[in-house]
Amino acid sequence: MGAVDINCDFGEDFGIYKIKDYSELLQYVDSVNIACGFHASDPSNMRKAVEASIEYGVNVGAHPGYPDIVGFGRRNMEFTKDEIYDIVLYQIGALDAFLKKFGKRLHHVKPHGALYNRAAVCEKTSEAIADAVRDYSNELILYALANSVTVQVAQKKGLTVWSEAFVDRTYEQDGQLTPRKIVNSVISDPHFAAAQFQQIVNESTVTTRQQTTYSIAADTFCIHGDNDAAVEILRSIRKEHRSLR
Amino acid sequence: MGAVDINCDFGEDFGIYKIKDYSELLQYVDSVNIACGFHASDPSNMRKAVEASIEYGVNVGAHPGYPDIVGFGRRNMEFTKDEIYDIVLYQIGALDAFLKKFGKRLHHVKPHGALYNRAAVCEKTSEAIADAVRDYSNELILYALANSVTVQVAQKKGLTVWSEAFVDRTYEQDGQLTPRKIVNSVISDPHFAAAQFQQIVNESTVTTRQQTTYSIAADTFCIHGDNDAAVEILRSIRKEHRSLR
Amino acid sequence: MGAVDINCDFGEDFGIYKIKDYSELLQYVDSVNIACGFHASDPSNMRKAVEASIEYGVNVGAHPGYPDIVGFGRRNMEFTKDEIYDIVLYQIGALDAFLKKFGKRLHHVKPHGALYNRAAVCEKTSEAIADAVRDYSNELILYALANSVTVQVAQKKGLTVWSEAFVDRTYEQDGQLTPRKIVNSVISDPHFAAAQFQQIVNESTVTTRQQTTYSIAADTFCIHGDNDAAVEILRSIRKEHRSLR
Amino acid sequence: MGAVDINCDFGEDFGIYKIKDYSELLQYVDSVNIACGFHASDPSNMRKAVEASIEYGVNVGAHPGYPDIVGFGRRNMEFTKDEIYDIVLYQIGALDAFLKKFGKRLHHVKPHGALYNRAAVCEKTSEAIADAVRDYSNELILYALANSVTVQVAQKKGLTVWSEAFVDRTYEQDGQLTPRKIVNSVISDPHFAAAQFQQIVNESTVTTRQQTTYSIAADTFCIHGDNDAAVEILRSIRKEHRSLR
Repeated sequence: MGAVDINCDFGEDFGIYKIKDYSELLQYVDSVNIACGFHASDPSNMRKAVEASIEYGVNVGAHPGYPDIVGFGRRNMEFTKDEIYDIVLYQIGALDAFLKKFGKRLHHVKPHGALYNRAAVCEKTSEAIADAVRDYSNELILYALANSVTVQVAQKKGLTVWSEAFVDRTYEQDGQLTPRKIVNSVISDPHFAAAQFQQIVNESTVTTRQQTTYSIAADTFCIHGDNDAAVEILRSIRKEHRSLR
Repeated sequence: MGAVDINCDFGEDFGIYKIKDYSELLQYVDSVNIACGFHASDPSNMRKAVEASIEYGVNVGAHPGYPDIVGFGRRNMEFTKDEIYDIVLYQIGALDAFLKKFGKRLHHVKPHGALYNRAAVCEKTSEAIADAVRDYSNELILYALANSVTVQVAQKKGLTVWSEAFVDRTYEQDGQLTPRKIVNSVISDPHFAAAQFQQIVNESTVTTRQQTTYSIAADTFCIHGDNDAAVEILRSIRKEHRSLR
Repeated sequence: MGAVDINCDFGEDFGIYKIKDYSELLQYVDSVNIACGFHASDPSNMRKAVEASIEYGVNVGAHPGYPDIVGFGRRNMEFTKDEIYDIVLYQIGALDAFLKKFGKRLHHVKPHGALYNRAAVCEKTSEAIADAVRDYSNELILYALANSVTVQVAQKKGLTVWSEAFVDRTYEQDGQLTPRKIVNSVISDPHFAAAQFQQIVNESTVTTRQQTTYSIAADTFCIHGDNDAAVEILRSIRKEHRSLR
Repeated sequence: MGAVDINCDFGEDFGIYKIKDYSELLQYVDSVNIACGFHASDPSNMRKAVEASIEYGVNVGAHPGYPDIVGFGRRNMEFTKDEIYDIVLYQIGALDAFLKKFGKRLHHVKPHGALYNRAAVCEKTSEAIADAVRDYSNELILYALANSVTVQVAQKKGLTVWSEAFVDRTYEQDGQLTPRKIVNSVISDPHFAAAQFQQIVNESTVTTRQQTTYSIAADTFCIHGDNDAAVEILRSIRKEHRSLR
């Protein structure tokens, strides 16, 4: 079968606080989204995350979020379009700096948490993000929720945008991710997650929490490292789908 | 007479808090050091500061500081060498991002406040800063206190370093700046400031607070915008010394 | 004529950043709402604000806000009920500590900015605030927008609540304050502000931005120190209405 | 044998970041030092820590630190005496607020990390801390390093001060704690820790890292929850020494 791009969030430690050791995941994924100090991480943890990513040979993306570490960027904040542009551009530049030492460049940008979800349904937010990505470099790829407003906006602006599907998050019938506060919104059963992945790859559909069928075509797949079954899911996927990198 | 480079700190607003309108200064200086969100400023104020700098045609430098907005980066913090490297590199990248929109690049880096003063006497701190500057781009100029450890370290590493003298700060007999907590460490009399400037330019010396003569050769001169006499001082200087830009 | 309680926000400096010198205002107001380090201020500025308040003999209240200094607490943030309770209780305790040295106690609590506005229309937010105030001390008065959900909730819980009207902010026809982003939402003309005040005191009504008449009974009146006409407005008011303190 | 007071740091989670589940420790210790949002924790985690402490019946103390969550309060910061007073008083009040709901009061204050270590050798820092504790309530006990400057300063000011010894940290020959960056400064062998504890209790001495004997009399003993052997050490101690609570 074909190759697929699988990404995971990475570099979410903060100060002495450790999320979890994601090293094993880095053997299986193609690209990582590294936190930039606003919803998680700090300069030293960012450097370490970049070093680990380069060691494992994965593509490095910026994972900008709202400036709210206590809320881990999962709380909505009321930002103007300009403010969103500014915080996204700032975070992209800050992370990219750690790649320069290695002669590397950022591969992509994926908004985090509440910012990602907000952009998915909000033209203004998506425009701000797309403008920041394009102003930074027109070689950057934007990762955005498949079928979302963000994809439309980015395409209209001429950006390279990769539609993203989620391996281990359930979907609502309108194609949004089920909010994390709802029970079982994170899929912890590796069989179910692998099945969802296969269905999206092979049939370009996903079965929603409401048991409806939703059409979805994905360029990249997200898996969460804090999912205890992540490695098992990834091994299962990699048996059939080789890595893009 | 010859041309001199004059720089000033810029972009130190934070949220709704305004330091002062420095626009008038921008007509006279050659380069600005823009705060990067650690000791002052935030992404939106950084963007505005970059826009104003480009409008006035001045060279833009990053002004990284300790992460301490309440203390305005003027309080010493005990950082490891790695941590200093990380916070400096982060801030350089974050600011540079706002120049990309305009197809511009950072001109220089000047450490701020307690970080600048610490580096001036500390090899380890200077090495961390110099490494961050060089790893970001070997075209960046480092502004550092004339005759300081930072200048030596940067030269040894092959960086372009500009020795900096201060128009409106008094000097100690060992060449350090008089700490701000000491009365009259900031020169508010435009005649005295202009005289100090002329003495450094013409004689390569400065008269210290202890009334000794200290040898100093400067590639760039700093003037502080929060000095009420700044514009008057600059006008006086510009009568005889044209701008470098 | 009778006495009225007039309050103003106070202690909004942050680090070296100064809002404005409000000392003159303190001669005319009865109570102040002091920022608690979340949307503005820091421990040292809080101490100074408390010292000034005690020097002028005004009643001291806590002014808790969302944790967002860059946004000055004016941006909505999506908090759970528990989180609102927690941030309000934390800020009340932190400010009250600075009164203990003087053998004084907090007089009241007034939520700030987006938190105040959100509470005015949201039962859950108002309950969280009211619970925090009551759990801290049942002698604390809660200042809340006249006719708001907050007033109803607080009364139901048995708190002492003072309905608040605004001298220098325009009203919408539904009784909400006109959002600050709308032009002329802050009344800078002292005659218009004084007229609005008199109308509320004498007729218990206010004329809204839509030119409708809205019924309003107020126990306390807010005036903003960043309004350049504040002192003039206060002098005008104090000619006819003596202070409550 | 007699009763001893054993304390541990507690409530050091931050946002979604968890340090470790310390519940088991709470069965053995007498008092806890709860982080106050400056070097660790946030309002919601503070409330949860207070609730757990009350559930287990331990005495609750405030654990104020430098405002530096990335550095976990372990980095020195250059604060004035007033600034130290202000940040300590702020944090005491903030934590105490969460006890009011339960009709409880703070039992003690123990400075954290770099602030604790600085105070141990610095009269100015100790005075600022002691003043803040006394101004908040003269019933508060100050926990301070045995034989330190802090103990002397607090006694001179008439505070109740409890000399503290450490069960699982090694000592230098001058009585200071061995800095954490030195290998084996944290004692992880439960037998060695229990032996150090017994020696201090029975002989009022401790054997330093330099193998000298240092005289030490302790009113309270600290054990660290992040020490994997903590529970085992505590069980061993509790066989012979009953709890003070």
